[in-house]
Amino acid sequence: MSTYLILSIVVGLVALGVAVMLSNAISAANAGTARMKEIAGYIHEGAMAFLYREYKYLAIFIVVVAAIIATFLSVSTALCFIGGAVFSICAGYLGMNVATKANVRTAEAARHGMSEALKIAFSGGAVMGLGVVGLGIAGLAVAYFVFDRNIDIVTGFGLGASSIALFARVGGGIYTKAADVGADLVGKVEAGIPEDDPRNPATIADNVGDNVGDVAGMGADLFESYVGAIISALTLGAVAYPGGEGVEFVFMLAVAGILASIIGVMFARSSKSQNPQAALNSGTYIGGAIVIAAAAYLSNSLFGSLDAFWAIAAGLLVGMIIGKITEIYTSADFGSVKKIAQQSETGPATTIIAGLAVGMYSTFWPMLFICIGVIVSFFVMGGATNGGMGLFGISLAAVGMLSTTGLTVAVDAYGPIADNAGGIAEMSELPPEVREITDKLDSVGNTTAAIGKGFAIGSAALTALALFSAYAHTVNLTTIDLLNPVTLVGLFIGATLPFVFGAMTMESVGKAAYEMIEEVRRQFREIPGLLEGKAKADYRKCVDISTAAALHEMILPGVLAIVAPLLIGFLFGTEALGGMIGGSLAAGVLVAILMANAGGAWDNAKKYIESGVHGGKGSEAHKAAVTGDTVGDPFKDTSGPAMNILIKLMTIVSLVFAPVLAAHGGILLNFFK
Amino acid sequence: MSTYLILSIVVGLVALGVAVMLSNAISAANAGTARMKEIAGYIHEGAMAFLYREYKYLAIFIVVVAAIIATFLSVSTALCFIGGAVFSICAGYLGMNVATKANVRTAEAARHGMSEALKIAFSGGAVMGLGVVGLGIAGLAVAYFVFDRNIDIVTGFGLGASSIALFARVGGGIYTKAADVGADLVGKVEAGIPEDDPRNPATIADNVGDNVGDVAGMGADLFESYVGAIISALTLGAVAYPGGEGVEFVFMLAVAGILASIIGVMFARSSKSQNPQAALNSGTYIGGAIVIAAAAYLSNSLFGSLDAFWAIAAGLLVGMIIGKITEIYTSADFGSVKKIAQQSETGPATTIIAGLAVGMYSTFWPMLFICIGVIVSFFVMGGATNGGMGLFGISLAAVGMLSTTGLTVAVDAYGPIADNAGGIAEMSELPPEVREITDKLDSVGNTTAAIGKGFAIGSAALTALALFSAYAHTVNLTTIDLLNPVTLVGLFIGATLPFVFGAMTMESVGKAAYEMIEEVRRQFREIPGLLEGKAKADYRKCVDISTAAALHEMILPGVLAIVAPLLIGFLFGTEALGGMIGGSLAAGVLVAILMANAGGAWDNAKKYIESGVHGGKGSEAHKAAVTGDTVGDPFKDTSGPAMNILIKLMTIVSLVFAPVLAAHGGILLNFFK
Repeated sequence: MSTYLILSIVVGLVALGVAVMLSNAISAANAGTARMKEIAGYIHEGAMAFLYREYKYLAIFIVVVAAIIATFLSVSTALCFIGGAVFSICAGYLGMNVATKANVRTAEAARHGMSEALKIAFSGGAVMGLGVVGLGIAGLAVAYFVFDRNIDIVTGFGLGASSIALFARVGGGIYTKAADVGADLVGKVEAGIPEDDPRNPATIADNVGDNVGDVAGMGADLFESYVGAIISALTLGAVAYPGGEGVEFVFMLAVAGILASIIGVMFARSSKSQNPQAALNSGTYIGGAIVIAAAAYLSNSLFGSLDAFWAIAAGLLVGMIIGKITEIYTSADFGSVKKIAQQSETGPATTIIAGLAVGMYSTFWPMLFICIGVIVSFFVMGGATNGGMGLFGISLAAVGMLSTTGLTVAVDAYGPIADNAGGIAEMSELPPEVREITDKLDSVGNTTAAIGKGFAIGSAALTALALFSAYAHTVNLTTIDLLNPVTLVGLFIGATLPFVFGAMTMESVGKAAYEMIEEVRRQFREIPGLLEGKAKADYRKCVDISTAAALHEMILPGVLAIVAPLLIGFLFGTEALGGMIGGSLAAGVLVAILMANAGGAWDNAKKYIESGVHGGKGSEAHKAAVTGDTVGDPFKDTSGPAMNILIKLMTIVSLVFAPVLAAHGGILLNFFK
Repeated sequence: MSTYLILSIVVGLVALGVAVMLSNAISAANAGTARMKEIAGYIHEGAMAFLYREYKYLAIFIVVVAAIIATFLSVSTALCFIGGAVFSICAGYLGMNVATKANVRTAEAARHGMSEALKIAFSGGAVMGLGVVGLGIAGLAVAYFVFDRNIDIVTGFGLGASSIALFARVGGGIYTKAADVGADLVGKVEAGIPEDDPRNPATIADNVGDNVGDVAGMGADLFESYVGAIISALTLGAVAYPGGEGVEFVFMLAVAGILASIIGVMFARSSKSQNPQAALNSGTYIGGAIVIAAAAYLSNSLFGSLDAFWAIAAGLLVGMIIGKITEIYTSADFGSVKKIAQQSETGPATTIIAGLAVGMYSTFWPMLFICIGVIVSFFVMGGATNGGMGLFGISLAAVGMLSTTGLTVAVDAYGPIADNAGGIAEMSELPPEVREITDKLDSVGNTTAAIGKGFAIGSAALTALALFSAYAHTVNLTTIDLLNPVTLVGLFIGATLPFVFGAMTMESVGKAAYEMIEEVRRQFREIPGLLEGKAKADYRKCVDISTAAALHEMILPGVLAIVAPLLIGFLFGTEALGGMIGGSLAAGVLVAILMANAGGAWDNAKKYIESGVHGGKGSEAHKAAVTGDTVGDPFKDTSGPAMNILIKLMTIVSLVFAPVLAAHGGILLNFFK
């Protein structure tokens, strides 16, 4: 086994070891009062019940798809697929298990101060972050070694990761938003009781949702991104450097990224700062600096030039810029959110129009910078004279963005843990200072998460693009020509799919939320003394509604994403499928940005009004802003994030099935000819 | 001059003659009471004032662009550009002038019965319909003859038509929606007075808006579609048949379409049926049948086969199917609208989510049928062995859809005339039976217009696609290869533009509506006795707000559409520009369908609730539905329809400037290399 593969496996195991250590430290912390333990128990139980039921569906899916792959491709690819799927499930399980322990301990720690609470919450996030990257790199290195460096087979690992990610994101997203919308609309708006009030029957489901959607769903999502980016870089690196330096570079960069993440996590965790933002930033900057230095060193020592370093630096820079742009469109410190808040004065309709306009506008600059990233990383690697080298450059930009995924996930997952801690504090009637601390932690998490979103979107676009090139290489396409009407038809169909997919997921949230609303209304009506706090709400019923809806509704979009590319490939051939991938890539990235930013902007416009402007809480403007926020919920937490996975999943399906499609695709086309 | 050119000019003049005859008949009709004449006078005056101010801006634009064209291309092209622009303005002026006469006379006629009112309103629409096609075909035939059959020069005529159309659509759309939202939100919702109540200061602006947006804007829009489709077919027909039969076929088909339209108009107008739907349908079916027969005859006699006929039939059929699909998604007789109405029960947020989901879903089937239309019309003409012939087939499908544009416009423009008649009846306090008749006419118009929208969207996609092929031919591109990252970057940028354009236009409506709302609130507050009906509202102030906002806000989107393709072409070259057109085509059609259908569905969900379900008028569900309708207004009447023009305008800009771009484009690309 080569040194870099051994190193990858060892560093992957180290990351997992650190994760276990942090997890033990969390378990050892004080879990608070009996009431706190009881509530945390409900949440943990609801979350685990959801996961186990979800796994039953996924097991069937994995078996069926593995059988198909084994039949039409190879048993090795099927094994890789199973490996990717199972590792993805492990990453999600690990993250959620620790998150549902860390939430209550964060609440307890918050009774003693900010830095204590930050330490627990951030450790919870870090367990998932290090779990994701550790499982990812170790799994890929093992698969690469076992299957004799045949990257076509290892791609199956990516397919497993991507398909589980889509189900987890869609299922988790529907779960969390159905519960959230139900809890808010009936509890806050109709009954006038505060957020997370124990009288609200949907409040446990709401807190479970934060875990299954924002923690487990997000973990599977980033596992998929991480694995996908590395696979695309391995594929193109093997083409660009037949001697193997390309592959070595990619693995070594990932190793450096994981070490950087571990150091960054330790740094942020040990910070004694009372300012959580400063603690998170210090960790993030240190991690980033280590990766940059490592990229320069590796580029020079393996390729004898800094070309690859520049591609990676371009990727990192574009990711940071997109993160900053995201913040400008979604933070109340800037004009867009203020404009939405102002339009709330003339009612919900103008609030919605303004938010949609912000979301649509906000596509421009990120897309432009993605394009700049593509152009720079392509040409800096010499793409003008050697196309394959240029494409490798694009994939390196994506790997650069995702190298510190361990840190990104830690920061991202810490938000929902703090949010949950606040919920537990509220439901356990802890003193208001505790809630203040968890709110502060939560809001810092939101800002930092914006940067993470920039990396997620940017890397999704670049990774999909690199996978797209890998696909074309595998099926031996020399052009994907838009002047061929069949390719253009592929493009049209591909561009339509993100819209259909968005519609499906939004409608699922609408349906599930409708059921939830009816149930909460029913409980308020039929359980005597509930609103007066004398009777107990039936939490379990609401948890069941969210669970059943999420599992039922995740199937169709998931199947669509896998079947659509195969259908187009078999009917119209590999070039039309290339067009389809291009179309879904462009439209998917746009819709994802629109939804994420419109949702974020509405959310913060509401919070901005709650801070006292335009009449503050309870005013007509506030009601309009709540409507905007409710529309934005499925945008930013269900449909939008799933879009990033959709485009990569469709691309990787095409890539894995490329050999079959190249041999047997284009049935309908042959008929026309 | 060839016989077919003489015929084209003669038939064009005949269409204009019939239009003048119908216009005289309308002028001769009774214009009702003094109060009716007064109100109609305000509307006529406001509409004309807007047009004249708009023309001042357009004149500057025309002169500047003509100078640029004369400098960089040729004086002949500049003359064609001016011709197209001026003819487009004439079509809009003609239509609006007659519409603002027909409205009051329709109201008066409605006092005597349904068929009398239908006759006037439909004649008003027919004047514009025949004006559009008469000016279009005569203008093109003259240009084609004068500039010696040089289609590259004649394309300038299309550029003139398209650019004026964009300004007219955007300006008119902003005008009408600002007035509508302002009148509705303050008048209906806040003050609780009925629609078109004379106490509402924005009511005249609202009725003016129907004319400048739905009549003049729509006229310029369809003039552009008609001219664009014919130009693309002429360009590709000249390539496919160097002997000239292709060109002859296109002109002759247009001639047959105009004659069919005249006959259809006469038939619908003379119908004595008390059922306006039946009258309109009879005219439409007869017109369609004549075109089908003519296509078969011409195809056989000119080409010796029915191939071209099948391409045209495919286009017509796809247009009709898309129309039917549109109806399914937007009519209260079907599930989607009912689902939105049901979601209104849980408030405005779920109404919005449901409507957006319907809009996103509704993109799928139309796109699929557009793709089928492309595939069939391409392969039926032998595209598998002769690509040029296949592309000509695609352009013929578009021409087929638009051949009866005269009838489509007549039916489309009759709706706003009936709507205006209702407003005048209300403001003049005519008996409620009159309003019932005009409402009935209006609602029939809405259904029939859905089919027209199907043709508009389908033909826009096919025309843009054909123009795109013409562009590639002119700049001598053999491929537009998505595997080239620069082309893919073009695709990304192109797909982003419809989103940015949509954001711009929606934000403009939001801004203008905000001003309007403030003004109406101010008048209610500051004019003593206004709400009691004792004082007169200051209509002129509201008209001024809409006018100023519309003219100010139409500039940026219009300039964007013209500058963007030139910028990409000059910086990144003709292939990247090809990618950009492909991207904007796909995304633009999708966003256009989404917006049109979501807007239509919200509108009808509101009307469905008003018919008495879910609590009926005044219920909470109704309020939520009104919010949906208000969000849908700029969707369906401003941003959505402008999207169709945007994609064609960008393509035709590329086509006209193709020679310059081929010679000097790709500056930045050369730098990278």
